[in-house]
Amino acid sequence: MSSEFGKILRVSVFGQSHGPAIGIVMQNVPAGEVIDEAELLAFMGRRKAKGVLSTLRHEDDIPLFLSGMIHWQTCGSPLCAILENKDAQSKDYEALKEVPRPSHADYVAYKKWGKHTDMRGGGHFSGRLTAPLCIGGGVAKQILARRGVFVGAHLASVAGIEDEPFGLYPTQELFSEVAQKHFPTIDDASGERMQHAIKEAAADKDSVGGVIECAAIGMPAGLGAPMFEGIENKLAAAIFGIPAVKGIEFGSGFESARQRGSGHNDPIILDEQKNITMEKNDAGGINGGITNGMPIRFNVAFKPTPSINKPQKSVHLASLEETELVIHGRHDPCIAHRAVPVVEAVAALVLLDVILEHNHGHQ
Amino acid sequence: MSSEFGKILRVSVFGQSHGPAIGIVMQNVPAGEVIDEAELLAFMGRRKAKGVLSTLRHEDDIPLFLSGMIHWQTCGSPLCAILENKDAQSKDYEALKEVPRPSHADYVAYKKWGKHTDMRGGGHFSGRLTAPLCIGGGVAKQILARRGVFVGAHLASVAGIEDEPFGLYPTQELFSEVAQKHFPTIDDASGERMQHAIKEAAADKDSVGGVIECAAIGMPAGLGAPMFEGIENKLAAAIFGIPAVKGIEFGSGFESARQRGSGHNDPIILDEQKNITMEKNDAGGINGGITNGMPIRFNVAFKPTPSINKPQKSVHLASLEETELVIHGRHDPCIAHRAVPVVEAVAALVLLDVILEHNHGHQ
Amino acid sequence: MSSEFGKILRVSVFGQSHGPAIGIVMQNVPAGEVIDEAELLAFMGRRKAKGVLSTLRHEDDIPLFLSGMIHWQTCGSPLCAILENKDAQSKDYEALKEVPRPSHADYVAYKKWGKHTDMRGGGHFSGRLTAPLCIGGGVAKQILARRGVFVGAHLASVAGIEDEPFGLYPTQELFSEVAQKHFPTIDDASGERMQHAIKEAAADKDSVGGVIECAAIGMPAGLGAPMFEGIENKLAAAIFGIPAVKGIEFGSGFESARQRGSGHNDPIILDEQKNITMEKNDAGGINGGITNGMPIRFNVAFKPTPSINKPQKSVHLASLEETELVIHGRHDPCIAHRAVPVVEAVAALVLLDVILEHNHGHQ
Amino acid sequence: MSSEFGKILRVSVFGQSHGPAIGIVMQNVPAGEVIDEAELLAFMGRRKAKGVLSTLRHEDDIPLFLSGMIHWQTCGSPLCAILENKDAQSKDYEALKEVPRPSHADYVAYKKWGKHTDMRGGGHFSGRLTAPLCIGGGVAKQILARRGVFVGAHLASVAGIEDEPFGLYPTQELFSEVAQKHFPTIDDASGERMQHAIKEAAADKDSVGGVIECAAIGMPAGLGAPMFEGIENKLAAAIFGIPAVKGIEFGSGFESARQRGSGHNDPIILDEQKNITMEKNDAGGINGGITNGMPIRFNVAFKPTPSINKPQKSVHLASLEETELVIHGRHDPCIAHRAVPVVEAVAALVLLDVILEHNHGHQ
Repeated sequence: MSSEFGKILRVSVFGQSHGPAIGIVMQNVPAGEVIDEAELLAFMGRRKAKGVLSTLRHEDDIPLFLSGMIHWQTCGSPLCAILENKDAQSKDYEALKEVPRPSHADYVAYKKWGKHTDMRGGGHFSGRLTAPLCIGGGVAKQILARRGVFVGAHLASVAGIEDEPFGLYPTQELFSEVAQKHFPTIDDASGERMQHAIKEAAADKDSVGGVIECAAIGMPAGLGAPMFEGIENKLAAAIFGIPAVKGIEFGSGFESARQRGSGHNDPIILDEQKNITMEKNDAGGINGGITNGMPIRFNVAFKPTPSINKPQKSVHLASLEETELVIHGRHDPCIAHRAVPVVEAVAALVLLDVILEHNHGHQ
Repeated sequence: MSSEFGKILRVSVFGQSHGPAIGIVMQNVPAGEVIDEAELLAFMGRRKAKGVLSTLRHEDDIPLFLSGMIHWQTCGSPLCAILENKDAQSKDYEALKEVPRPSHADYVAYKKWGKHTDMRGGGHFSGRLTAPLCIGGGVAKQILARRGVFVGAHLASVAGIEDEPFGLYPTQELFSEVAQKHFPTIDDASGERMQHAIKEAAADKDSVGGVIECAAIGMPAGLGAPMFEGIENKLAAAIFGIPAVKGIEFGSGFESARQRGSGHNDPIILDEQKNITMEKNDAGGINGGITNGMPIRFNVAFKPTPSINKPQKSVHLASLEETELVIHGRHDPCIAHRAVPVVEAVAALVLLDVILEHNHGHQ
Repeated sequence: MSSEFGKILRVSVFGQSHGPAIGIVMQNVPAGEVIDEAELLAFMGRRKAKGVLSTLRHEDDIPLFLSGMIHWQTCGSPLCAILENKDAQSKDYEALKEVPRPSHADYVAYKKWGKHTDMRGGGHFSGRLTAPLCIGGGVAKQILARRGVFVGAHLASVAGIEDEPFGLYPTQELFSEVAQKHFPTIDDASGERMQHAIKEAAADKDSVGGVIECAAIGMPAGLGAPMFEGIENKLAAAIFGIPAVKGIEFGSGFESARQRGSGHNDPIILDEQKNITMEKNDAGGINGGITNGMPIRFNVAFKPTPSINKPQKSVHLASLEETELVIHGRHDPCIAHRAVPVVEAVAALVLLDVILEHNHGHQ
Repeated sequence: MSSEFGKILRVSVFGQSHGPAIGIVMQNVPAGEVIDEAELLAFMGRRKAKGVLSTLRHEDDIPLFLSGMIHWQTCGSPLCAILENKDAQSKDYEALKEVPRPSHADYVAYKKWGKHTDMRGGGHFSGRLTAPLCIGGGVAKQILARRGVFVGAHLASVAGIEDEPFGLYPTQELFSEVAQKHFPTIDDASGERMQHAIKEAAADKDSVGGVIECAAIGMPAGLGAPMFEGIENKLAAAIFGIPAVKGIEFGSGFESARQRGSGHNDPIILDEQKNITMEKNDAGGINGGITNGMPIRFNVAFKPTPSINKPQKSVHLASLEETELVIHGRHDPCIAHRAVPVVEAVAALVLLDVILEHNHGHQ
């Protein structure tokens, strides 16, 4: 079990949902980077619980930097930031220890760690662990922006209701615009319909899934590697670290399996400044694991929240008897909308790692 | 650029399409494993070129073991196996050096390595590099089978034409049956239609993509890890190492984004032997990055072969002038059907690594 | 810069001498391990400052476990423990920012990170960072003990004054006995003379170095690997992570370069229980990178504390003028005696990692 | 068991002494590097057997590049080079399978891999595996030289007979001069006495050990890292991968444990060009794991060859009876002199990795 990733920018996440604190350690953050506190807090605010659409658990989530940062400037030594857990209500979860919740990690944690595991509130598997990722990702986004790289995401669909796609050339302005919205869609009417679907599911004691589209602009061509350390490999490996992710596709993704080569291939042309570029972007900005200079573009599938208030079949771990489980406690009827900044955060961490690997010591 | 993966079972791939040889080094293969030569060659035979459906390049692909294997038994020290390149026809490719082929790695290799890169026949990016992966995967499959784990795959779709799915409980027998077919589908009628579509595309000087469904049975529950070293993370990271892969999804994958929790969640029940299991498998055998004892199940999207015989737009790298490129030489109108054993091979390498990590020293 | 090591047991250290807190994250600590608080605190107490022999800086160093531990039992998820910095007196160090201290890391940190680095009190290079290593090592020692492996160390020499060596078969009792002493030598008379030498050096505004002998008993034969992941490689890589270490040797070490084979080779014999063993241990318990069942034995050379109160030559970084530097502030006239538990801690972390790699999932 | 090291420049070694071939794979060698064949072969020639001082086994050791190199220029894709084993005389070693040779890896290999291990001629533990390291190191030395970094080594002592040390500022010319000698000492008279001692040991059916001093000049200040990824950590971890190494020390090393701070500390001064430098180099060019711009300097202790022709005590593995073993076959009465280029090779590989990590993509 290693809650770590990265080659140069090593990221290590720790904590349990109901432990004293959760946090992140990042090794090899470049020195001398000024971090804007307000911008970081605004970014973290985007993953917070949102009224009826979300859990009732509320945490301030003000990061406390234990190391690596002096007066909001990085100093080169490993950066550690933590968030205290204040609003944990463990009694709601006591009963779960005996009866695993379907499609949660309760059963597998029991198989892996035995009865010693801490599954209060989902333990280390909790969506709460995405908060420290957002600290790290928020820092990475600011460092990337200074290098001309911008990462954005929006909710491409919820319960089958689709938003507009980013299109061929998403802009920094579009990323900002979506980031400032209460509900992260490009088209507000689609967003309204998605919110309605989420509330409907909540009213039915049920939950819904969604898809997030993420893009990064400004990555120079030629970064990455063939085979196992390509951009797709690294992004996929990290993105599956976000709880509830069940799929990832780059560019035209699964649709490309239905395309012909003449339709899928991106013609190579010159832009107005006579630089080499592509006429379209079915590759999602990546060929052979390496950036081609077009925007990086990928979709991430989130399953519906496994916690629902309907009765579900399960088995009592000690008595090995089948039983019916009703989950109480607080939970989100949809997590995809809160996961939008998390996908951005993880993408930013991976892309900063790639940039540092290819350009280390030159910040 | 690291053409490597794995934690305990470290896999390193080397070679260029038109270099003297290609090969694989595997560190930490357990000692004392007897490898059946005929079975290994049969497995490797499954990725070979197949008549009109494939390239005309033909290689014997008899692996030569340089180390780690004595009289077809592993000895513990690093295993190296190579394949000589005999049927390389580099002259067909000379011209490509100047004009990158759309949606190939030519342009990105040029950006990464400059003019020194060896892109004859795709160089290190070539699908030919999947042959050494099949040596390693073929060895891994035999070691896994001895531990009760079996990996199988089939062509789930080509050009939108769908095969039957594996279903809830794929068997070792079903895996064998598909493996022995000339064209790797469960339903032969679907296979016929796919082959027809491939031939049609070839006749149109075009190519088609496809989806491969892969499954693994026999993996015990409790293997893997939360967050970044889970089974999904590792499989995704390695599978994107296969050329032309553009997406991966586990269990109900992208479909899960359209499901409700009550439909997606897999009820926990007892089987006839009173063991804990799940009633269905939308999770694809993995919760929270950890195996739950159900079959592991995932789909991989392959884009259409980027080499097509139609004229395509490109740019001359030296003169920076737009031009029209016509690719000659040999290439597959579809690679998805040849990639079926490659997906199995990579999955077997990853799963053996997971098993060795959790049970090292006990072989 | 990665303040990390380990393959299965991943250790990540963070913090600066004068930052808010320092700490350690350990991934893959086995679940269900009961940790004795008093034993852990006693272990950490051994590296604390000791009267006139040491710096006057005093820290409570009560570890605060943020994750991975519930009611002093490990739960499987990543373990994070921190120590607050309370007695940091940064004003003593302000001046050092401009003029690097000879044989400290001031100059190299400036070259690596520029003026943004935090070198107050040595920053991330400070010996203070060995305190979190002792938390991790103290936990590892308890887990190892439960598996029959014991690690001990003593001060083999200071300023050329030598202690008795551990001898062929050091025992758990001998380890305990030394651990409980105020000054960690086997022979008290030697210890007295060493302390006298340290005080003498302090009186001369100078400092002294020393050698630590470390041993581990109970490691089964057959663990480790040839070439680059052997026990010696791993121990050496980690031990050089302790500030002020300048050399490491295993078994007869540098002396072996003066031996003949007939004198160095360890004859293979049967012990009284008819088990294979060796008649002596010039190999230090390791052949070809792999444990041979004899005690693991190695020596570590510590240079004298670079902080001395004598005037020293240095250069002003901004004006590039040569100058004379006098270091004020608190510092140890010898660090070797305080480093004894640190060497044990690092050795315990490495050996636990080796055991987990070879026997993972079987705790 | 991973015969691998490196972060960016990943090195993987494979092969057994009496297998078909041995070799090396290097990932991330910069593209476009011209390699001088004669220089590489001359470098490899330095580790070859030398008359009466060495084993009678003779191998051509002409490296065959399977990938990564076209017309003696690197192309960016993984480099693989192999050496065929031609002069293996396995029958000499058959008997050893049953009775382990003292202070060889026979017994530990048996414990680790069981009876399946290939220990003919030492198997994967053989000094023969240092030949592929010399291919890699020879390539790395040429790439380093183009960046102004030079690595050299000499035999500092054999059987207690000492050569002159490199001194404060070893030069590229001194490195070349030693490299061209038949016996690698700075002072020829010392070399004569060492050779005499080796022959004397051989006549006594015995063997002797030695110390190698290695230095690197031209490394810029500021490369490396505090704690666990420092230059000392990386060099030590890799150097212990050379068979028979039992100790490593940097700068004044174990002697520093006997020094006072005022004697050990290297005063910081300005050189004639007003650049910051140190007046002496007890640090061996490294403070806090990071290069300080002075030459990197370290000593490596080699034990005497464990193969001697005198009768030795051992135990029959199957019958578990004590026995007397007499080793026949060919072996070196001293390996230290042949190991001089091997130490250079490993140092060059590590230092190139460090440079690539800090300056990747800028070659």
